[in-house]
Amino acid sequence: MLTRVAVAPSGFKESLSAQAAAHAIAAGVRRVVPHAEIDLIPLVDGGEGTARALASATGGRLVALPATGPLGETVGTHFALLGSGSSGSSTGSGSCSGSGSVDTAVVEMAAVAGLSLVPHGLRDPGATTTYGVGELIRAALDKGVQRVLVGCGDSGTSDGGAGALQALGARLLDMDGFELPLGGRELTRLNRIDATGLDPRLTEVELLVACNPYNVLCGERGVARVFGPQKGATPAQVEELSAGLENWAYVLTRDLGVTGTDLYGGPGTGASGGLGAGLAALGARLLPRFDVLLDHLDLDARLARADLVLTAEGALDQQTPRGKIPAEVARRAKRHGRPVLALAGTLGEGAHEVPGVDACTGILPAPMALAEALVRGSEFLTDATERALRMILLGARLPVQEAAVQAVAVQTAAVQAAAVPTAAPAEVSGTQRPSSVR
Amino acid sequence: MLTRVAVAPSGFKESLSAQAAAHAIAAGVRRVVPHAEIDLIPLVDGGEGTARALASATGGRLVALPATGPLGETVGTHFALLGSGSSGSSTGSGSCSGSGSVDTAVVEMAAVAGLSLVPHGLRDPGATTTYGVGELIRAALDKGVQRVLVGCGDSGTSDGGAGALQALGARLLDMDGFELPLGGRELTRLNRIDATGLDPRLTEVELLVACNPYNVLCGERGVARVFGPQKGATPAQVEELSAGLENWAYVLTRDLGVTGTDLYGGPGTGASGGLGAGLAALGARLLPRFDVLLDHLDLDARLARADLVLTAEGALDQQTPRGKIPAEVARRAKRHGRPVLALAGTLGEGAHEVPGVDACTGILPAPMALAEALVRGSEFLTDATERALRMILLGARLPVQEAAVQAVAVQTAAVQAAAVPTAAPAEVSGTQRPSSVR
Repeated sequence: MLTRVAVAPSGFKESLSAQAAAHAIAAGVRRVVPHAEIDLIPLVDGGEGTARALASATGGRLVALPATGPLGETVGTHFALLGSGSSGSSTGSGSCSGSGSVDTAVVEMAAVAGLSLVPHGLRDPGATTTYGVGELIRAALDKGVQRVLVGCGDSGTSDGGAGALQALGARLLDMDGFELPLGGRELTRLNRIDATGLDPRLTEVELLVACNPYNVLCGERGVARVFGPQKGATPAQVEELSAGLENWAYVLTRDLGVTGTDLYGGPGTGASGGLGAGLAALGARLLPRFDVLLDHLDLDARLARADLVLTAEGALDQQTPRGKIPAEVARRAKRHGRPVLALAGTLGEGAHEVPGVDACTGILPAPMALAEALVRGSEFLTDATERALRMILLGARLPVQEAAVQAVAVQTAAVQAAAVPTAAPAEVSGTQRPSSVR
Repeated sequence: MLTRVAVAPSGFKESLSAQAAAHAIAAGVRRVVPHAEIDLIPLVDGGEGTARALASATGGRLVALPATGPLGETVGTHFALLGSGSSGSSTGSGSCSGSGSVDTAVVEMAAVAGLSLVPHGLRDPGATTTYGVGELIRAALDKGVQRVLVGCGDSGTSDGGAGALQALGARLLDMDGFELPLGGRELTRLNRIDATGLDPRLTEVELLVACNPYNVLCGERGVARVFGPQKGATPAQVEELSAGLENWAYVLTRDLGVTGTDLYGGPGTGASGGLGAGLAALGARLLPRFDVLLDHLDLDARLARADLVLTAEGALDQQTPRGKIPAEVARRAKRHGRPVLALAGTLGEGAHEVPGVDACTGILPAPMALAEALVRGSEFLTDATERALRMILLGARLPVQEAAVQAVAVQTAAVQAAAVPTAAPAEVSGTQRPSSVR
């Protein structure tokens, strides 16, 4: 009865990548229904692992290169050239594929300006830069792609994408005409932008940004106020960053002649410390991240084929419905009427009320410290999946169900001559208890 | 499809009584299937809560009285007089009911000599006594009962029941003819027993002991070696207690003329620090605890009526099949082919392999210390039950099942004239998703 299981988890932050989570869940499924077809669909949200996951899903490749890290140091990083293994046409974006051999590059901002690249002791979002993101975009343009998709998420910066624009040739000048140093805290001193040196190829390609549309640049829910503290900002720094980003939006709009886009409060302008706003000023389109990412994975069709959808994330709570992966998986699975089970390391307030999630379960087998839970994530996820599948199969064997199935069997025999065109016997026998299950 | 749910948990040690656990589980069931008939069957194993639970289950009452606690101090305690609300006839014991108005008293040794009555700093199993157990038996005899059932478990003593015999009139004498003080450590000095003062009513009533038959008095698996350390004994004290209990078995057998019972190694002789052996020397019958306790709760019939059986204990692990409540519930439920789900605070090695348990789940929602888990046990158990029931109902709605049910519906219509005597439509509609479940 569980012939096809879709395994579509997020990663577990600081414990498991999405790939590792998918493999751990699959191992648990196999213990209970060893002959099930398991479709592994590790999911990404634009942040860490996005370039690698999309390259893998499309049969593309990663290009490794050095670039400028968030603290100005050189780091080893990469971007992805997508293959043709998926549709590639982003339903959500309305764009069409070009004719070149490599159509789309994916620049994952976290791979060159992510929070995990900033050591805990050095976390000062006023100092970090997205300069490396601009370098990666330039390197992608060097490959002759028609489209650059920038994945946002897990950023360690709050410079509004100023560094990226500098790397792409814009000159950010103070009132004395001197170029600003790197870092978001300098933006209060920005007087004007000289855009004459911008890379001309930017006007010839499609620039897309995959972002959480809930993130905006300025105001009370602006990125400095909401995410600054997570990135290490003090309250005074939060105010300084807010003021700088507001000035950034003003000068960008004026000097780059931005029309039709609200850089202050438009959806996604606050993505990755305001990188969304900076790229939007260059003509990039800010798109809801799942619309632009998940189509590359052919997610909807794969969920539609599954008897059961398993998703997972480190935590399931009130934030989950606000754009987290389990909520998105559940929303899409429900379009096809598929049952969804979510596994999580931590079940917080609201975990039982995520729309579209039919059931959820925690993975911890005993009281323990967070550190141990993080280290043993894979083992716990496999064991918890086994337990969940056993509960699901227990439900599938409830007495009345058995009565119904028996009735089908009896009636199938009784009406066989009558040729009622339903209930293929193979389907009915498929509901029997697998021999591997107690 | 979940019309009747049996809730048959153990208590969660240091967190929830069996009653509290049953109520917490029931609350979780009601959140998912609000109209289910829930049969609360909090279970006891002879230890803490046994007298209260059996009094409650049979419509009997508790008799409160002062008696001698494990450290020789006076404590408030109680025993139970069972009502006629259950069969009362212990299938496992083969005894028959008398004609008096109150037939059976239950003396719970933990209520007067339990480990929880011994403060951590004073835990010295060589010093503690079962004197109070003898006092409770005497008080029960004063009520004119025909049968005294002594529940073992959760004891804080290792005196072989010597204190109980002293309270019942036996004199334990050293080689100078002086009476021994209370406490297991004195038993190495025991020279002979003067039994002439034993309460004569003991020969007129049936004395039954509900115990774990795996517990024996002497030898490598003897009670001092297995449980002494848990009760606070040092290795030297363990050896002293072992020697004392061996001497105790020798003198008891000789001076009370015990025949037909192996006080050294017979099943249950080690129950409650050897209380089993002491009472056996008085003619008590040592019986497997579940056989003698659970029939009072009419357990088998109640499990047989359930669509689903939920059981629970603080921990589920390799020890569970060795006489723990979830294993016993599963064994009995399986006689009737009932599905069993076990919930536990801690899932240890072997938790997934308890015979008869179809599925299990942990109850913890997040990494946390044991102390927090113990305090929030009720809340966690309710939430985990809700999640488990959702998983079970998810299983009950799996696509192929739906196909089978639809097939039944179609075929029922098709063959109605043919009068096939199966598949009442009411049963089929019973498999539909309850409206309260997402």
